Amino acid sequence: MMTQQVYNFGAGPAMLPTEVMQQIQQELLDYRGMGVSVLEISHRCKEFGEIIDSAQQLFRELTGLPANYRILFMHGGARMQFAAVPLNLAARNKTRKALYCETGNFAKLAAQDAAPFANVKTILSGAELGYTQIPQLRPEMIDQDAAYLHLTSNNTLYGTRWNAFPDCGTVPLVADMTSELLSRRLYFSQFGLIFAGLQKNLGPAGMAMVIIREDLLDFATEQVPILLNYKRCASDNSLTNTTNTFAIYAIRLALEWLKRQGGIDAIENRNEQKAAILYRLLDGSDFYHGVADPAHRSTMNVTFRLADTSLEQRFVDEAEKAGLYALAGHRSVGGIRASIYNPMPLEGVEALAQFMTEFARVNG
Amino acid sequence: MMTQQVYNFGAGPAMLPTEVMQQIQQELLDYRGMGVSVLEISHRCKEFGEIIDSAQQLFRELTGLPANYRILFMHGGARMQFAAVPLNLAARNKTRKALYCETGNFAKLAAQDAAPFANVKTILSGAELGYTQIPQLRPEMIDQDAAYLHLTSNNTLYGTRWNAFPDCGTVPLVADMTSELLSRRLYFSQFGLIFAGLQKNLGPAGMAMVIIREDLLDFATEQVPILLNYKRCASDNSLTNTTNTFAIYAIRLALEWLKRQGGIDAIENRNEQKAAILYRLLDGSDFYHGVADPAHRSTMNVTFRLADTSLEQRFVDEAEKAGLYALAGHRSVGGIRASIYNPMPLEGVEALAQFMTEFARVNG
Repeated sequence: MMTQQVYNFGAGPAMLPTEVMQQIQQELLDYRGMGVSVLEISHRCKEFGEIIDSAQQLFRELTGLPANYRILFMHGGARMQFAAVPLNLAARNKTRKALYCETGNFAKLAAQDAAPFANVKTILSGAELGYTQIPQLRPEMIDQDAAYLHLTSNNTLYGTRWNAFPDCGTVPLVADMTSELLSRRLYFSQFGLIFAGLQKNLGPAGMAMVIIREDLLDFATEQVPILLNYKRCASDNSLTNTTNTFAIYAIRLALEWLKRQGGIDAIENRNEQKAAILYRLLDGSDFYHGVADPAHRSTMNVTFRLADTSLEQRFVDEAEKAGLYALAGHRSVGGIRASIYNPMPLEGVEALAQFMTEFARVNG
Repeated sequence: MMTQQVYNFGAGPAMLPTEVMQQIQQELLDYRGMGVSVLEISHRCKEFGEIIDSAQQLFRELTGLPANYRILFMHGGARMQFAAVPLNLAARNKTRKALYCETGNFAKLAAQDAAPFANVKTILSGAELGYTQIPQLRPEMIDQDAAYLHLTSNNTLYGTRWNAFPDCGTVPLVADMTSELLSRRLYFSQFGLIFAGLQKNLGPAGMAMVIIREDLLDFATEQVPILLNYKRCASDNSLTNTTNTFAIYAIRLALEWLKRQGGIDAIENRNEQKAAILYRLLDGSDFYHGVADPAHRSTMNVTFRLADTSLEQRFVDEAEKAGLYALAGHRSVGGIRASIYNPMPLEGVEALAQFMTEFARVNG
């Protein structure tokens, strides 16, 4: 019996590179001759020290991260950072004012979760436009008294992204890049802080990577739980307590894989190529139409509807039978969403495009 | 070439049952016919729903947990709970008084981490005795005005444990059971809250299991980060955000394994048998001596010194060559520590005892 090729278009936890999965499987019972599994070794042993150090080095090598930025691995995924950011940064200004750009569901949750710890001011909202575009952020909207400005660079549910990032003057720009970190070239000096849950482009679920400019490490008050304290995390090299060793091991493998793909520029090109296949199909079709405004389209999450929405459930079901997995849109918005993070091969996108064309032919 | 049998005596992340590791490996690329890995599936899909529900059911079945207790899976390991406990419970009493029993390193850290969020009162300390015994907790030491009383049931570094638990009257007893949950029969009605990092008896590192009596869910203030809020976690069935899906999957397998071993009574008997082999050897030897007071010995962590401490490094090194891995005591106390959690087979302990006897013969 031939096993069907399956492509996982889930938004997260999402597809990992097949090679990474195979490597995890192969060395799971014996980590490189130690005789024990990487799941079983101490976070303080030299072998794990090598894992966490090389993950950081590889990230720096691949991204060109400037030396005055630290890399932290923190428990809890991106949402823990929704609290950690105000807990650590609001005290930068005595007004505790924090500016939020509401460009989607997670952007809104970030502002809500921050409200107990900062004086949250939502300075733009895409709600009235159904979050299908990123409203324009004009310089005069950025109060220079603010402790920071928060935005969500890629909106997973709606398939929009910030193509360019605003100049915030002296206000540190904080970006939730959960669904796109390492998918495109960044100019880190535009940012004060970047965080990303790992479960999209990076690895398994349960942690976040935090990239922070060193001068922002110093504003946490005593009221910050120790495992949410950036300064403490930095000084302990992310080992204040037992970390999620498996996740960091998997990130290291994912970074090695990314390097083998040719690095960030190569993966960015491939991501644009993958997204273009689907957007071209949407733009040339009456059967499908894209959700996001073309000027703000994500390369990671391609969202669309069927002209006849009553066919969407059949689309999802038949796609699954054809090995195209998890294409239903988020439960709060419906429709179709194809998440095509770094690990999604071109062949997966081509298979989806072929399925879409055929489905439109039969049902159109 | 024959592969040497390795036994991992590390304190955590610690040994997982070999069968569990093999099962993870076997189904890593294709979770039960889905065609995708358990690492890649959504925390909201029905297959993961089945995993988290059955993990909870199995825990209840194995332990007899009363219906008025909830099981939560929370990010960050036990140390995140050092903050979460006071953040959620201190408001039970307007004095915000919280009683701590300092019976070791982690007990002390728990009190320190709680200090920003509660009026912490350390009511007993084993420090003067080098934490080699659990000081007596007399009823009059328990202020009935306190919001809760915290103790660490098994002290991993020192190899001591609370054999019996105090009657705290109306004060909820909070127990950090990281290094022993599921290793012995418990009477849950003695406790208001139990928490445990997973990486000893339960699974991979990065999460904690929290067992909480329902009436204690209601005291969190708005100042609690959402992912540390017990009530929210309970009402979302631990899925407020993307959880550490792999860890919960692994726990489920570990619980199935525990059931196949015969359940809690059987594993408790085996744990006592394993510990007795080592303690008998220590008690009958002039070459070795146990660290913990015999009345408070842990069955999970057996700590000892060599009469000639200058031989300890050689002991650790030669043990490793013999496949007995990670026997060095915690870096803060030195000496030797054999962590023999549930997954450690009897044969591993017998191999260690044999090595110890031989090492004493050669070096004695």
